[in-house]
Amino acid sequence: MEQVKALVFDVFGTVVDWREGIARDAAPFLARHGATGIDPRAFADAWRRRYQPAMEECRSGRRPITRLDVLHRENLELVLRDHGLDTTRIGEAELAEMNHAWHRLDPWPEAVAGLTRLRRKYVLAPLSNGNIALLLNMARRAAIPWDAILGAEVAQAYKPEPAAYLRTAEVLGIRPDELCLVAAHNGDLKAARGCGLKTAFVTRPTEHGPGQTTDIEPSEAWDVVARDFQDLAGKLGC
Amino acid sequence: MEQVKALVFDVFGTVVDWREGIARDAAPFLARHGATGIDPRAFADAWRRRYQPAMEECRSGRRPITRLDVLHRENLELVLRDHGLDTTRIGEAELAEMNHAWHRLDPWPEAVAGLTRLRRKYVLAPLSNGNIALLLNMARRAAIPWDAILGAEVAQAYKPEPAAYLRTAEVLGIRPDELCLVAAHNGDLKAARGCGLKTAFVTRPTEHGPGQTTDIEPSEAWDVVARDFQDLAGKLGC
Repeated sequence: MEQVKALVFDVFGTVVDWREGIARDAAPFLARHGATGIDPRAFADAWRRRYQPAMEECRSGRRPITRLDVLHRENLELVLRDHGLDTTRIGEAELAEMNHAWHRLDPWPEAVAGLTRLRRKYVLAPLSNGNIALLLNMARRAAIPWDAILGAEVAQAYKPEPAAYLRTAEVLGIRPDELCLVAAHNGDLKAARGCGLKTAFVTRPTEHGPGQTTDIEPSEAWDVVARDFQDLAGKLGC
Repeated sequence: MEQVKALVFDVFGTVVDWREGIARDAAPFLARHGATGIDPRAFADAWRRRYQPAMEECRSGRRPITRLDVLHRENLELVLRDHGLDTTRIGEAELAEMNHAWHRLDPWPEAVAGLTRLRRKYVLAPLSNGNIALLLNMARRAAIPWDAILGAEVAQAYKPEPAAYLRTAEVLGIRPDELCLVAAHNGDLKAARGCGLKTAFVTRPTEHGPGQTTDIEPSEAWDVVARDFQDLAGKLGC
């Protein structure tokens, strides 16, 4: 890790707790529309399940690259219909506001303090499939200390496409092995390692709720394995 | 200006003093290579004079869009040869280091304090023809409080092409009239206004040295005219 100059971060699940954040905003929204029988966390899970398939349309080339705010909005309408709601009876402003719940996710409790320590030594940026406005609004609201907002919209490629990792190193003006991806997801780290990046695994054992079974343990010998961002800062000498 | 949500800034000349910064780093470089007869400020001016023509190659379509670090480096070698230096006798590391002088420019004295006030109310980002790594390194060194690094590399278009302004509003998720360009250059503001952006002129009467004759006064009734960033913050109620 001695040559690493910049750390880039997966965001949904790694920096922020998307499940609790979406559930928090979905609860009053669903209640207002008479859908009190829907569990807000199950609603968050259902919305999130449509995330990868929507991006896959772009990755496969069947659809041009489309920013995540647009995909999230399409998926919101689909998941509302799946739950029996008539989206034509919900106003445009309210749908837009609900969709912006992804801009209002809270970081995990130690994340901002850990990032603040890490920033003393490293350039920090998100390498997320989230779009620039989403990540910027999230960072302002939660005081996340990024040096720049990078990711799919800058690279014009969705992870785990190699271009997402390689173009991020390129715009930072560094070699892939001078860049380290921090993520709570083994698959993301595997793709980054395949591109020559360094890798740091951070555990987020409740990203999917109390019964989570995936990404509990590192699947490979990543360059660093840490409990959380404070532990990561300690292990990187920050 | 009531609807404005984000301020984007021209950087070279508006946020930072490129002439003094380049001259400061060029002086020891030129001395090391026996070029003591070259005035470092004249050298900075000569390097900068090649800036617009190099970008024009990209704007015209004669050359694909190329990041500014690359154009600066090509121009450095040209200007060194113009001054009679043999660039093949200067090591690669030293040329790269000299080229990075653009990453080490100092802000005008009140700029960071003014931006810090403006950030309480507005999203702040550069809208510069500088590339991401250049602007990021500059911001880290000088503690410039950007929310994101935007500009030509994100928009994939050099100012004053309309796409540079319009794609910046688009990635911020706002309308052009919710975005205000802050610049010390009437031409930049004219192009931004042509795209529907709001405009703020800030005077930088010594950007080109003590004898400056251009951009001393606003050429049109811009939405705001301010002496400097502190004055701008006051005029915008920050």
